[in-house]
Amino acid sequence: MSDAETHKEEMKKVQAKHRAKVAETEDPGRGLVLVHTGKGKGKSSSAFGVVIRALGWKQKVGVVQFIKGKWITGEKRFFDRLGDVTWHTMGEGFTWDTQDRDRDIAAAEAAFAKGVEMMQSGDYDLVVLDEINIALRYDYLDIHAVIDSLKARDDRTGVILTGRDAKPELMDYADLVTEMTEVKHPYQSGIKAQRGVDF
Amino acid sequence: MSDAETHKEEMKKVQAKHRAKVAETEDPGRGLVLVHTGKGKGKSSSAFGVVIRALGWKQKVGVVQFIKGKWITGEKRFFDRLGDVTWHTMGEGFTWDTQDRDRDIAAAEAAFAKGVEMMQSGDYDLVVLDEINIALRYDYLDIHAVIDSLKARDDRTGVILTGRDAKPELMDYADLVTEMTEVKHPYQSGIKAQRGVDF
Repeated sequence: MSDAETHKEEMKKVQAKHRAKVAETEDPGRGLVLVHTGKGKGKSSSAFGVVIRALGWKQKVGVVQFIKGKWITGEKRFFDRLGDVTWHTMGEGFTWDTQDRDRDIAAAEAAFAKGVEMMQSGDYDLVVLDEINIALRYDYLDIHAVIDSLKARDDRTGVILTGRDAKPELMDYADLVTEMTEVKHPYQSGIKAQRGVDF
Repeated sequence: MSDAETHKEEMKKVQAKHRAKVAETEDPGRGLVLVHTGKGKGKSSSAFGVVIRALGWKQKVGVVQFIKGKWITGEKRFFDRLGDVTWHTMGEGFTWDTQDRDRDIAAAEAAFAKGVEMMQSGDYDLVVLDEINIALRYDYLDIHAVIDSLKARDDRTGVILTGRDAKPELMDYADLVTEMTEVKHPYQSGIKAQRGVDF
């Protein structure tokens, strides 16, 4: 066989395999629960990538940002201008900046209540609970309360939960878990966080 | 010490560590090269998350999509409507659908030429070469030509290259490499790809 024919045969096999994989699957009839965790970059930004993907299909999206309240981020500026996304930012900054556990817990609970409202309303195709894993890690929120709220969500609503150190209970419940691993980071080469790329 | 005081002390340590880490870094005075690879989800979507982050800061963004030409994706629909991003889609579909190596190579080279033009123009803060790693993996593009083009990019321009199986030469050159690992995928539970979440 020529190179072109060999290539064609190989691609046919890949195509058949791919089609078989797709054919085996079925529509679950409900929104999925996705978890983005790990120490690497891309946990929140891929959630926002999914947000714009959903908006492309004219879906309705809500975002609750835990933890990053005091930061001005490019994504917040972008979605503020766009006006298409229901956005709730927790009132406080990073936990190591506030240094007040009771205030952090109150802020996390208020943000979570907003998320629960969105998930149960039936008005949303996608709800992003950004950095909620950090609030769970510090026990500002109870993992069982979070999983109960996921179970009680409207069938229409998919949920993405981000942040490092996702709880095992959450990963058990989720349909999809992706771990972002830091293979190489600019901090290692002494490079400062940049607008656009980092925040 | 009370719980609250212990918490405050701990957070102070975290804060000091974080500040020291940031203080050690410096602005490189040039756009960074980021690679998103691995078998997990989120390689392209996190690139699009960075795109909207950059747009939030009023930066100029260009996207070249290798491979996914025939798919209609939510992100393409979104950015088409938005009109703020220079977008070039390679003319052909997945390689296992075209099954014509020469046509694939020609399409990949044309898409790459568009990317090179954007990277060297000085007009862009961010250029995304989406799924270029697939074109590299099938040797539709030469890795040395790609790295030379990255080296020759304008200082203003950051570049994100996505796709599984990133070449070692590319990871060596990049400032940041993130690997997306599939911990759990809906395909495993027999769930079909969904609009919004998957494409």
